[in-house]
Amino acid sequence: MLNTTHDPQLTSWVASANRPDADFPIQNLPHGVFRRRGSGEAWRGGVAIGDQVLDLGPAAALGLFDGLAAEAAALAAAPQLNGLMAAGPVAWSALRAALSQALRERAPQAARLRECLVPQADAEHTVPAQIGDFTDFLASYDHMVNAGRIFQPAHPELPNFRWLPIAYHGRSSSIDVSGTDFPRPLGQTRAPGAAAPSFGPSQRLDYELEIGAFVGPGNVRGRPIAVGDAQAHLFGIVLLNDWSARDLQAWEALPLGPFMAKNFLTTISPWIVTLEALAPFLCGLPRRAEAPEELPYLRLPPGREHAAFDIQLEVALQTATSAAPMPLTRRSARHFHWSLAQMLTHHASNGCNLRPGDLIGSGTQSGPNDDEKGCLLELSHGGQRPIRLPNGEERAFLEDGDTVVMRGWCERDGFARIGFGECRGTVLPSGAH
Amino acid sequence: MLNTTHDPQLTSWVASANRPDADFPIQNLPHGVFRRRGSGEAWRGGVAIGDQVLDLGPAAALGLFDGLAAEAAALAAAPQLNGLMAAGPVAWSALRAALSQALRERAPQAARLRECLVPQADAEHTVPAQIGDFTDFLASYDHMVNAGRIFQPAHPELPNFRWLPIAYHGRSSSIDVSGTDFPRPLGQTRAPGAAAPSFGPSQRLDYELEIGAFVGPGNVRGRPIAVGDAQAHLFGIVLLNDWSARDLQAWEALPLGPFMAKNFLTTISPWIVTLEALAPFLCGLPRRAEAPEELPYLRLPPGREHAAFDIQLEVALQTATSAAPMPLTRRSARHFHWSLAQMLTHHASNGCNLRPGDLIGSGTQSGPNDDEKGCLLELSHGGQRPIRLPNGEERAFLEDGDTVVMRGWCERDGFARIGFGECRGTVLPSGAH
Repeated sequence: MLNTTHDPQLTSWVASANRPDADFPIQNLPHGVFRRRGSGEAWRGGVAIGDQVLDLGPAAALGLFDGLAAEAAALAAAPQLNGLMAAGPVAWSALRAALSQALRERAPQAARLRECLVPQADAEHTVPAQIGDFTDFLASYDHMVNAGRIFQPAHPELPNFRWLPIAYHGRSSSIDVSGTDFPRPLGQTRAPGAAAPSFGPSQRLDYELEIGAFVGPGNVRGRPIAVGDAQAHLFGIVLLNDWSARDLQAWEALPLGPFMAKNFLTTISPWIVTLEALAPFLCGLPRRAEAPEELPYLRLPPGREHAAFDIQLEVALQTATSAAPMPLTRRSARHFHWSLAQMLTHHASNGCNLRPGDLIGSGTQSGPNDDEKGCLLELSHGGQRPIRLPNGEERAFLEDGDTVVMRGWCERDGFARIGFGECRGTVLPSGAH
Repeated sequence: MLNTTHDPQLTSWVASANRPDADFPIQNLPHGVFRRRGSGEAWRGGVAIGDQVLDLGPAAALGLFDGLAAEAAALAAAPQLNGLMAAGPVAWSALRAALSQALRERAPQAARLRECLVPQADAEHTVPAQIGDFTDFLASYDHMVNAGRIFQPAHPELPNFRWLPIAYHGRSSSIDVSGTDFPRPLGQTRAPGAAAPSFGPSQRLDYELEIGAFVGPGNVRGRPIAVGDAQAHLFGIVLLNDWSARDLQAWEALPLGPFMAKNFLTTISPWIVTLEALAPFLCGLPRRAEAPEELPYLRLPPGREHAAFDIQLEVALQTATSAAPMPLTRRSARHFHWSLAQMLTHHASNGCNLRPGDLIGSGTQSGPNDDEKGCLLELSHGGQRPIRLPNGEERAFLEDGDTVVMRGWCERDGFARIGFGECRGTVLPSGAH
């Protein structure tokens, strides 16, 4: 799956892409939808390169791309990338190869393409696709057990976790891109021992560190997707913050699962890192010795066992009085119990149709160690043991003015660093806009 | 809220609309999206009148409508009705008044409009809006208790039911209109006492009798909807069958709720009966003596207490060997514990944004009597006591070849009958298309 676009020696005529700590070197080329901030311009598709955005509409109009790459470039220039996602891996790869050629050092197209760059500092973003459905999984063994220890200490491990990728349908309307400030949600909660619930601002507001995957071509209703084919239905990956109001969740979630506790906002990073860019970072799933073998429909076939991604994930918290974000969590997404391919196959196994642009959340990414817990619920042991921040403040849950910053990147010897940028959001007081 | 369009004396120049048992008299005028069956024509909006569809595109092109009614007619002629839903009650009402004028006996427009009729027998339908999000509630006290007696006999009543409208997010992609045949879904189940689950066709396939409401203008994220204003955000109502695989549900649903058990298909009736057509059938919610008073944000203000709809609902089953559908259930939707207005207000109370075209399901409609149970799970007491059909067959759950037919209508002395048409679907063997 690796090709010349992954060559770590490649450099770009966009100088900022060549810095060793760049999130967006020429080996990355993630897709997003943007416009100049405050311009009122139309939203359109672009590709990140260094600290710039390549504006794909005018770039494609230069006639520099041919055939399938030109068709894909037109789809990638649209205000919603569903058409590009539907086009499938061959088209995605053709566009990537053409962009890699056009953006590399000494490319003859450089002079004309330079006119199509917009500084990222001047850009604003929107959700890059019409997300028909958002599904959120529970794929981290450690998150499952950590949460289980808090909510049902006698039986912390769910009996179905090792057999099926557990999931629920989330809310599409309230997905937004990084940078969204939002009022603390109101909701119904019942205090322990209280006779009646009350309605007011959530007192146990939390983040959840996840990755999200945009679905590519998808399937017709009634036709499942074989697990060996599933990866070809994944377009790319973003960071995802599944903001959660734990007190609303505790009161509402039986018997139908989380609803108002999570549907007020979900934040994603604006750049979609393609599966092809992530190919060097595919790795095997950790199989615990005691885990049963998967049922056949979920068993990764020979040659497809490397279905996890070794993505480094980090959460930092900036409070109203701190000068900079303070790290809370660092974690690799390779510790998934279930791969995105298995989640997709399970999702379609009953005939449910997945459409281009659907979003799949991984569920909170947590590991066995304290600095690998992907939400405050786990870090503070259900709020019982507030954590101490480097600046001396304590947190059990988020306070007004707190900004959560998630970052992600891939590193491996012999390959260029591939970054995701950041996924950020700030809690405002209830009622603020 | 009643006006001359509700006058029971009104008759139409479309003679079939004047039959006393017509679902679609001139007092109804429901909206849908259709084309001539098998024609490959473009989908477009129409209004049902008697056994005909008024094709709104050509009708509007005749220049018979003015001002707001003309604007609304253009939106109602579109292949997706989201624009009409966004336009709000004043526009909906203007269009209804204009259609009522144009379709009534001796209307001067009759001769020209007659050219815009398509027989319903020649029409096929599609989902009438882009459904951004589908939310399914649990609003029937009797369904909650009946299901509770099966799943947790020691505590059949959920402690949160009387305080909040319980709901979960459903699947948008697999919503389809009446007439869809579908293969029995496959899925993971675990037999009682088995050490491991298995994967195969669901053995406990069920229907659920619901009504669905399409959201009108909706709200901006972060801005709740006051319960006194909520009804103005409801465009209209359809019948809804929330097909459910009970064996998949039992294995997967803890802790995140139903997922694969329900997302393989949801069927709706093709005609959306508007809130204005249903105005004569508004009625109060039954308040059980022991129910607590609602929290203030859910309390219907004076003058808005009539928030339930007295809709007669019926389920019939036609088997592979029966000559006609056999009635299973008859029920009025007035027995809701929560009104659609309260569901909507609760849904937006945390700032979650509802968009035009979103679909709200009521949850299974059941009553206290055996012939008022809205699904086979309840009728057969969890499969323990199969029901005997009039033709001698027995059913615990659905068998291949079974067709479920739901019908709904409103009747009240002094008003025309308002019908919903039917919502129908047939179970095919697993793997069939």
